[in-house]
Amino acid sequence: MPPFSDRLAALRTRLAQEGLDGFVVPLTDEHMSEYVGGYAQRLAWLTGFQGSAGTAVVLAGDAAMFTDGRYTLQVREQVDSADWSFCQVPQESVAGWLAGHAPKDGRIGYDPWLHTRGWVEQTAAALAPRGGMLVAVAANPIDALWADRPQPSDAPLAVQPDDLAGRSAANKRAELADWLRGQGADALVLSALDSIAWAFNVRGTDVTHTPVALSYALVAADGTAELFVAPDKVGDAVHRHLGNAVRVRDKAEFAPALRALAGKRVAVDPERAVAAIFDALDAAGATLLPVRDPVVLAKAIKNPVEIAGHAAAQARDAAALVRFLKWFEQTAPEGGLTEIDAAEQLHAFRAETGVLKDLSFETISATGAHGASPHYKVTPESNAPILPGQLFLIDSGGQYADGTTDITRVMPVGEPTAEMRDRFTRVLKGHIAVATAVFPHGTTGAQIDGFARRPLWEVGLDFAHGTGHGIGAYLSVHEGPQRIAQPTYPGGGPLEPLRAGMLLSNEPGYYKAGEYGIRIENLMLVVDRPIAGGEVPMLAFETTSFVPIERRLIDPALLTPQERAWVDAYHAETLRRAGPLLDGDTRAWLAGKCAPLD
Amino acid sequence: MPPFSDRLAALRTRLAQEGLDGFVVPLTDEHMSEYVGGYAQRLAWLTGFQGSAGTAVVLAGDAAMFTDGRYTLQVREQVDSADWSFCQVPQESVAGWLAGHAPKDGRIGYDPWLHTRGWVEQTAAALAPRGGMLVAVAANPIDALWADRPQPSDAPLAVQPDDLAGRSAANKRAELADWLRGQGADALVLSALDSIAWAFNVRGTDVTHTPVALSYALVAADGTAELFVAPDKVGDAVHRHLGNAVRVRDKAEFAPALRALAGKRVAVDPERAVAAIFDALDAAGATLLPVRDPVVLAKAIKNPVEIAGHAAAQARDAAALVRFLKWFEQTAPEGGLTEIDAAEQLHAFRAETGVLKDLSFETISATGAHGASPHYKVTPESNAPILPGQLFLIDSGGQYADGTTDITRVMPVGEPTAEMRDRFTRVLKGHIAVATAVFPHGTTGAQIDGFARRPLWEVGLDFAHGTGHGIGAYLSVHEGPQRIAQPTYPGGGPLEPLRAGMLLSNEPGYYKAGEYGIRIENLMLVVDRPIAGGEVPMLAFETTSFVPIERRLIDPALLTPQERAWVDAYHAETLRRAGPLLDGDTRAWLAGKCAPLD
Repeated sequence: MPPFSDRLAALRTRLAQEGLDGFVVPLTDEHMSEYVGGYAQRLAWLTGFQGSAGTAVVLAGDAAMFTDGRYTLQVREQVDSADWSFCQVPQESVAGWLAGHAPKDGRIGYDPWLHTRGWVEQTAAALAPRGGMLVAVAANPIDALWADRPQPSDAPLAVQPDDLAGRSAANKRAELADWLRGQGADALVLSALDSIAWAFNVRGTDVTHTPVALSYALVAADGTAELFVAPDKVGDAVHRHLGNAVRVRDKAEFAPALRALAGKRVAVDPERAVAAIFDALDAAGATLLPVRDPVVLAKAIKNPVEIAGHAAAQARDAAALVRFLKWFEQTAPEGGLTEIDAAEQLHAFRAETGVLKDLSFETISATGAHGASPHYKVTPESNAPILPGQLFLIDSGGQYADGTTDITRVMPVGEPTAEMRDRFTRVLKGHIAVATAVFPHGTTGAQIDGFARRPLWEVGLDFAHGTGHGIGAYLSVHEGPQRIAQPTYPGGGPLEPLRAGMLLSNEPGYYKAGEYGIRIENLMLVVDRPIAGGEVPMLAFETTSFVPIERRLIDPALLTPQERAWVDAYHAETLRRAGPLLDGDTRAWLAGKCAPLD
Repeated sequence: MPPFSDRLAALRTRLAQEGLDGFVVPLTDEHMSEYVGGYAQRLAWLTGFQGSAGTAVVLAGDAAMFTDGRYTLQVREQVDSADWSFCQVPQESVAGWLAGHAPKDGRIGYDPWLHTRGWVEQTAAALAPRGGMLVAVAANPIDALWADRPQPSDAPLAVQPDDLAGRSAANKRAELADWLRGQGADALVLSALDSIAWAFNVRGTDVTHTPVALSYALVAADGTAELFVAPDKVGDAVHRHLGNAVRVRDKAEFAPALRALAGKRVAVDPERAVAAIFDALDAAGATLLPVRDPVVLAKAIKNPVEIAGHAAAQARDAAALVRFLKWFEQTAPEGGLTEIDAAEQLHAFRAETGVLKDLSFETISATGAHGASPHYKVTPESNAPILPGQLFLIDSGGQYADGTTDITRVMPVGEPTAEMRDRFTRVLKGHIAVATAVFPHGTTGAQIDGFARRPLWEVGLDFAHGTGHGIGAYLSVHEGPQRIAQPTYPGGGPLEPLRAGMLLSNEPGYYKAGEYGIRIENLMLVVDRPIAGGEVPMLAFETTSFVPIERRLIDPALLTPQERAWVDAYHAETLRRAGPLLDGDTRAWLAGKCAPLD
């Protein structure tokens, strides 16, 4: 008997005791992180939902789960429809739902450390017409009910050395100080964990799959900084690395430090800093300069050392992938393999590189109908046998000290159907159309997105997720600000101009509910592309992932001569890069996979 | 000796008398119209600029002209660089320029009937850091200096009959009343002239090329309305047409009527209603509901009667175009033709239809280097002879009671160069890629835009304007809300989902400064496109303009088989549609132009 109904009932009782008519439970942490530590998995504790993005809203007699198109199927499998109704964002919103469902004059609680001020203002406005209001809670009511809630991690910080980071932390701080002076500001609040890791050249292990440490920072216009982090996490080497210009303070001192900024002009990012930070600065009497965290763009544009590190990580990771694909092709038809077996085997191949720090996200190992959930997460309960006639989709990545990877491949078990080959080839055509795009400076991901979809659109198909996301340098596997997606995608990423040095994924897909899923994902680097006779400075993508794309799933008759040439050149390069890292048997297998298409 | 320096000096003197340090001169009217009557051509009076979009900012010792990429060349030809500096939007903004150039504590004047409140707030915020402020003037200072300023037109209103409008005005008002009740609002302010024309099924001739009447309207939630218009403009037939539910009031009573809305909840469009309207409603104590004018979307989605009327107007207009192209091809090589000759001849062919109401905009008749200004407007001073070796570009349209047209064609005089053919064919490939796009419901113009540009991007070229705009039904030649353009295009049009029934232009181009311009423009209707075996409801475009695309400028070797088939099918359909409307000679000429490509 799952405990989720009991937990929901207990939360309702507690809300009533606290004089609240409802409460909002997002899936994030005090840093607006996408992936969060176990201590912050309140949504999973309350509802059983295992996806990576969602929000629950609880009222006395009503409860709703909000997820995006990636989780339309999964949320219905994992969350009890007797207790919860299901809403899809962005078509529906928490604010809109509360406007319709909250009781008149209702008091709806929220944790100000888990929402942006923009969310608070928008949601409060939606409640206002019927007299409702949002109420900031002093302590999250779930934490009081969650008996075995994990403690936040106390893992130590590690230095990210300059020969991997490509720039010293002092150099980065000097740039931030310049920026602050240019804005006429005294201090910058950094609350995004990957921004802090990048700015100070440190890494951590506090968040699963993302090498960051729970921390805050204040950077001053004189180039000094304060790093707020649990003191036990900072060893001598990190202290020496940080140097005298960085004062290490206890994380608990962050809120008091904000309140001490009276009279200062403080830059703070309304998308990345939570409402509680704004509240503290307002209470201090600081002047707020709401601007995007300047680290976001600086971090997205990789320097030459990071680009070289990324290439090395990709080559190493590709060799592990090739070993896995060969193993899968030879093992799966014998029967007996499960999704967890496959994920563990790939993890083992990556671990055998000897330098794997972590996976970059939980591997999506999905066979048959599970593949139709783009972000399916296998559990012991869901773990399915891999059967003949299925397509098997595996989306995975590694964290290495020199780079972060993310790649998706699909393999048939036995003979694929003509429909599967048609769909796979259309996804491939979209993938190639993105990979070969050449575009002027100033072009945004929204303008590229259609290239990925057109071969599917032509036959009345589409996929319900973005085409590409940014990726970090030994940091987050999903990194802003850029994104390839429809222009109305939440967060504005598709409206961000692409710039040389940015990394992006290229991952169109196709999902047939109840049957199979297809996705072809490589990473790409944005590069300057001089063109003889051209008039406008152009950019282009250079693919950085080199792993064979399963030829049994390609229908060459659907490819143009240019597309076929792209596939053949891609496979030749794959063999050239991965071959030397493989044993003879695997190299020979790879050579077969990389031969020109028939 | 042009008078513009004297006018600028006179304005500066007057500003000083009024205690102002500067003044902003936009090119619009009290209705935020794109095209405005002569009485509102203050920007042209002050600067000499003849383009259709721009803003001037005047300070005591500095003056700047802001135009977009369409006018980069033209503004430098028409406006004296000794008096004015030139700024390009959206890269630069009036607010940003004022922040840098306005004197400390400067008082910058603006006419509150010519700016949105959003502009006022943004510009005021930009001035604030150095103590500057925006000051609303009670009367526009230019009007006092402009001795021979035209009076606003007193042309009569005309009824747009139901058999052309497709819906009665009472039916439209009932829909607006439903909408108001759904919003919980008491009244709707209509200030956009084309919204008023659509809602009341009336047309006017107060604005050149756009059949609208200077007016305002208030629509009440009970379905009644007030139409504010100069009383002399409303004859008996229009009074009868409007009926008892519409009260006709003098336009001068509009501002007092707003001030009488105390305590009412009033829907008003922040993009289309000027700051003075908001100021009046605020002063009245009305509750403002800032929402998009609901007519905008209703008007954009053409009904079956409007679609049929559009097709009839297109066929008639195409026949005039074909006659013109034949005349041009036979006359131009003889020499002696000028740009004005060509524009007048095309106007004559359109007039010979017997039902032309007006041109839909001033014809762009541009030969050689003039074509490289996408919105070139020929004047007696600029009027150039059409010479062998040139490309001649003509962008024009007609206003007919059943529809509005807009089309661009390019003709060579003599033998085009290989480069011209390469560029023309790439523009054509982009045009075809848009025309043949199939896309899901919810797709926006931003996602389509890249299709138009890719063949140019591939060789390092681009064009500096949007790909497509909406168009009215015997209304504005540029009509929102939809647009095909990069997602950051001002106004948000590219983020508007395309819907069945919308009309759009498809007009990629290429412009080589100092040499020639290319643009291929047809109109298209968005239609539902059921696809057998598809899973997602799809939309597509149906081209509605049928005029031959000059075959001497097409390099068939650059076309894919699919593109070539599109051209041949397009030309076959062109012959089928236009042929019956032409005399035998012209029909024979057209048949040659419409033969399959070699």
